[in-house]
Amino acid sequence: MAAIHDLAKDFVRLCQEGQFEEAGKRYWSDRIVSLEPMEGPMARSEGLQAVLAKGEWWYQNHEIHQVTSDGPYVHGNQFAVKFIMDVTPKTGDAAGKKLHMEEIGLYTVQDGKITEERFFFGG
Amino acid sequence: MAAIHDLAKDFVRLCQEGQFEEAGKRYWSDRIVSLEPMEGPMARSEGLQAVLAKGEWWYQNHEIHQVTSDGPYVHGNQFAVKFIMDVTPKTGDAAGKKLHMEEIGLYTVQDGKITEERFFFGG
Repeated sequence: MAAIHDLAKDFVRLCQEGQFEEAGKRYWSDRIVSLEPMEGPMARSEGLQAVLAKGEWWYQNHEIHQVTSDGPYVHGNQFAVKFIMDVTPKTGDAAGKKLHMEEIGLYTVQDGKITEERFFFGG
Repeated sequence: MAAIHDLAKDFVRLCQEGQFEEAGKRYWSDRIVSLEPMEGPMARSEGLQAVLAKGEWWYQNHEIHQVTSDGPYVHGNQFAVKFIMDVTPKTGDAAGKKLHMEEIGLYTVQDGKITEERFFFGG
């Protein structure tokens, strides 16, 4: 059990420091699957390159004002983090509108790496 | 997708009103499995009677000062709720000590009922 607590705490610490890309690069498995609660191409990203590309798209298309990362919350080989984000999309229907978003990320760990991240949307 | 949002919001509304037992009685399946991140007999409770008995034990053995229920956060047929609790155990090693607890509950819904609840502990 100690291993997942250490990994989860380091992951959240990096998120709290704003180092989201570093957190992912350090702990995502090569076969990471990232699942969003929506229809379309963003619903499922499979493999490290696809997930890195999704992150790059996110940062290029959103101005990030503030992110709070609350956690980790641990059970077995999974941990959860609550994120509170204030962002302004640069493109799309909501371009220029400041959005307040709250979501929970559920991370599954195998052999010291995150093999799945699954996001739950509030509101 | 609408069905789970409605169920999840009603479940959280009842929790926010302090009606935790009513929330469970309304939405737990007869075959509910409740999973806690700990060793021992509380780790896994299977079936409605066992889960009701666990709840009864909890309320008999803790003085509840305050509970905040934050959510729901939804993905597919699952939803998450963050709970913040201030309680004082009446029995055991921590008897008489006021505890601040934060946890996330992850609920799995099938055919309009909660078939699994899985708790993630913070701290």
